[in-house]
Amino acid sequence: MKINDPAVLAEVEAAFAAYEKALTTNDVATLDALFKDSPQTLRYGVGENLYGYAEIAAFRAARSPVGVMRTIERTVITAYGDAMATANTLFRRDSMPGKIGRQSQTWVKFPEGWRVVSAHVSVIAE
Amino acid sequence: MKINDPAVLAEVEAAFAAYEKALTTNDVATLDALFKDSPQTLRYGVGENLYGYAEIAAFRAARSPVGVMRTIERTVITAYGDAMATANTLFRRDSMPGKIGRQSQTWVKFPEGWRVVSAHVSVIAE
Repeated sequence: MKINDPAVLAEVEAAFAAYEKALTTNDVATLDALFKDSPQTLRYGVGENLYGYAEIAAFRAARSPVGVMRTIERTVITAYGDAMATANTLFRRDSMPGKIGRQSQTWVKFPEGWRVVSAHVSVIAE
Repeated sequence: MKINDPAVLAEVEAAFAAYEKALTTNDVATLDALFKDSPQTLRYGVGENLYGYAEIAAFRAARSPVGVMRTIERTVITAYGDAMATANTLFRRDSMPGKIGRQSQTWVKFPEGWRVVSAHVSVIAE
């Protein structure tokens, strides 16, 4: 299995960047589109455990658009083979001083494109 | 891409069960063996951010063996193709009443077997 094939990695990095832009501009349609539409898709959020695409979409639709801006650091994206990748990053928000966020995603390439199949976001004291 | 091929899923479920047993018995050697020995391997823990296999192994070696027992629930393991899978579960410990843990792992099949390449563990109020 080839790790970090440059062409594959470039695709995932582009998908990751699109997700980050959508998150920080509260572009819910794009956020929804980048998660796999499947009952198996799962997202553990900062304060909620969402099982299945429908629960994730309902959460996003109800979320406040205030304070979504953030900065990311120590981002590591790794492609395993040609159809899967992990993306992990730390993040900070002005609204959470002294704390550091962590975001983990697993991406899979489907016929429709790269999609997040599993995500976990949490915040801890720094 | 085939999702949840029974033979693949059975392999991942066995690896997941071995990890859970090792975790709840503080079998550090097995825990170490089930993570991919690579600088790209990453683990966001309940209170720490570990980049690379060496940091993960050092953390495990220093960890208290007290209170590792836990029960798991709402476990979802999904295999994508024949060499990758996600495993997500909630967990509870007697030592954390009113709180729920979340554990996310991405597993990849290498020549040496199934290994965790990315993990994220966090605890939130229930």
